[in-house]
Amino acid sequence: MRRAAVLGAERAAAAAPLLRAQLRGTAGHPMATIPPPQALLRPLAVPQRLLLGPGPSNVPPRILAAGGQQLLGHMHPEMLQVMDEIKAGIQYAFQTRNRLTLAVSGTGHCAMEAALLNLLERGDTVLVAINGIWGQRAADIAGRLGAEVRELLKPPGEYFTLRDIQEGLARHKPSVLFITHGESSTGVLQPLEGLGELCHRHGCLLLVDAVASLGGAPILMDQQGEKIDVLYSGSQKVLSAPPGSAPISFSERAREKMLRRKTKPPSFYLDMGCLANYWGCNDKPRMYHHTAPINSFFSLREGLAMLAEMGLESLWERHRANCTLLCQELRELGLELFVKEEVARLPTITTVRVPEGYVWQEITAFLMKEHGLEIAGGLGPSVGKVLRIGLMGYNSTKDNVDRVLGALRDALQSCRRSRL
Amino acid sequence: MRRAAVLGAERAAAAAPLLRAQLRGTAGHPMATIPPPQALLRPLAVPQRLLLGPGPSNVPPRILAAGGQQLLGHMHPEMLQVMDEIKAGIQYAFQTRNRLTLAVSGTGHCAMEAALLNLLERGDTVLVAINGIWGQRAADIAGRLGAEVRELLKPPGEYFTLRDIQEGLARHKPSVLFITHGESSTGVLQPLEGLGELCHRHGCLLLVDAVASLGGAPILMDQQGEKIDVLYSGSQKVLSAPPGSAPISFSERAREKMLRRKTKPPSFYLDMGCLANYWGCNDKPRMYHHTAPINSFFSLREGLAMLAEMGLESLWERHRANCTLLCQELRELGLELFVKEEVARLPTITTVRVPEGYVWQEITAFLMKEHGLEIAGGLGPSVGKVLRIGLMGYNSTKDNVDRVLGALRDALQSCRRSRL
Repeated sequence: MRRAAVLGAERAAAAAPLLRAQLRGTAGHPMATIPPPQALLRPLAVPQRLLLGPGPSNVPPRILAAGGQQLLGHMHPEMLQVMDEIKAGIQYAFQTRNRLTLAVSGTGHCAMEAALLNLLERGDTVLVAINGIWGQRAADIAGRLGAEVRELLKPPGEYFTLRDIQEGLARHKPSVLFITHGESSTGVLQPLEGLGELCHRHGCLLLVDAVASLGGAPILMDQQGEKIDVLYSGSQKVLSAPPGSAPISFSERAREKMLRRKTKPPSFYLDMGCLANYWGCNDKPRMYHHTAPINSFFSLREGLAMLAEMGLESLWERHRANCTLLCQELRELGLELFVKEEVARLPTITTVRVPEGYVWQEITAFLMKEHGLEIAGGLGPSVGKVLRIGLMGYNSTKDNVDRVLGALRDALQSCRRSRL
Repeated sequence: MRRAAVLGAERAAAAAPLLRAQLRGTAGHPMATIPPPQALLRPLAVPQRLLLGPGPSNVPPRILAAGGQQLLGHMHPEMLQVMDEIKAGIQYAFQTRNRLTLAVSGTGHCAMEAALLNLLERGDTVLVAINGIWGQRAADIAGRLGAEVRELLKPPGEYFTLRDIQEGLARHKPSVLFITHGESSTGVLQPLEGLGELCHRHGCLLLVDAVASLGGAPILMDQQGEKIDVLYSGSQKVLSAPPGSAPISFSERAREKMLRRKTKPPSFYLDMGCLANYWGCNDKPRMYHHTAPINSFFSLREGLAMLAEMGLESLWERHRANCTLLCQELRELGLELFVKEEVARLPTITTVRVPEGYVWQEITAFLMKEHGLEIAGGLGPSVGKVLRIGLMGYNSTKDNVDRVLGALRDALQSCRRSRL
């Protein structure tokens, strides 16, 4: 083998027999013995689907085109400018002036880990509000990080009151509270007013997951009372970009806790100190940290541009109106909404109970097969209980409300089971 | 505010004043007070560049088109099939039959972390071979994970002999050895023959970084003697896909070490147990784990398809031939190659010493400005010492050798400094 001749003959002779393995073979390349897979020799075929599940949602042509642009280097000035624009776009979407605002090079889950692993050190107490899968997930991650995890539980479909939270804070004295704004597994929108103030009175930071809600329901990171310390989202929900990057922002209070760390975060890839430097969120010169997912950033930038053009208020209103219409028509179809109180319903993802006499998998399979349309069953604690219909970003339109209702009507006629 | 009415008036009255904050405001949405950033209202402009640095490299139109396809859901059967094809493509690229073979949802760095955090537990001893930035980086990450890090050092530009490694293994008795196959910061190709055998005799696993070398130089993961336990790469080098996904594979021996863990890995996003399940690498039914970067997987699939069509041997030969030509012409231009021994030169990235009488930043800036062409300076221990020229995948062509040489000739005439 070519690499085999790395050592001069002289040195090799002295080092034998240890180096013999390194030197075996002759000139020319070795042979690959595992053949190329046949499946890869056929062209990629991607069917067209209407994605009305809990995400990802369909991507508008303009964002697909942005993501299909030729690459730039990850340190080219034009790329750094794209990153600056992403930062400004996230500040607008989050309604924050936090300097430490950027996009993580991974999907929403990755941002959840980034938030937790930068905020928490081994032995820190974290209180996790669990009323669906995302709280469960955050508790799992915090446990892996060696934090003392305390859980505040609510049945799926319910939300936490300030009193619930206050009791939890007083009892467990956590340094961080994790709560989910848009519980996509249950369709619940968590009210946030007063939460930041309450947490801060208890010496605790407020960490909010807004993966499924950002852009679809009001969230004002810096607002007095609300005052969120760490907020993150994903690219593939209301922003209608492909999954692969995740907006995140840290308040000054959160930044100070991170500066007081005694140990480095257990990740280099997600270390906010390094990322702040790469994203120009401090006064130091920008420095290479990792090769960013360039095209994902192009798409995210375009999703944020569309948000900036449309304006948050009109996007919130669009989601509210289409969700209200959907809920009304679902009820007229005889379906029961899973979340009782109207104002606690997530405008991006609507959950209905699986109607009696039906198997949920048959409904979702029918919609996919006959209508090329995705809605989803439950997830985690809501599995088997609900169907989930997403109307997010580009997909939140009256036409899509009509399409999903027509398809559901068809499914309810075709999938009814005789009682066993 | 809309969310403010979450509680019924009855309950609210009982809970006052605590809930007052939650209830303030009237009907309708709150106002966004931070305006949309002006920069996002201008269209995205991406200049065309010839990327002949150490990566990312230019992406062929066919791969850009694959990445620009409309989305599928992350659990749709067609998506799972794309993932199966990626797995088969990586098995071919790595020349391995390992079942635990998949792509991580992040860039090459993320795969480095995935390898280390799944293999290592707190207190494990890891020996890191450092002859450039990637060893430094791996040592940093392993330290963050609480491992006992031992370093085996070589000056930048040199590689490790089997004797070096054997001495290190005997002295430090590590459970994992980290070594870089293609040191992109220095341009060194590390010989691997005999290394796996040697590590296994010392009860140690062999972990190899092939981000910059995969497809450009032979690597046979399963080959007797070589027998690598964990191998990873990136999408944006020879595979010529955008950055955002990273191939990785684990031997049975590595899998057994992971099964013996006493603690969960400190990441959910990168937990190989969960990922194996999601990727169908075990006998359990496939389960949702996280929302994968769908479009990055489309592009990676296409990069692997092009590799399968071309064949590893001809890709290796193409990189060898173009690198040899480049080195020859660089020498004729009077430049000095940084890596002395021909066989230790990485065929994907060539390093030349910064010529005397020149400032390296002036040369790279000149090439970018006058020729729209990227080459890079050094990185980590090679900063200020070298220029790095990458010819990878789609960019490894004789035309590009001619272009970069023509541009360099121009730069050497234009950038000479008068002695200070």
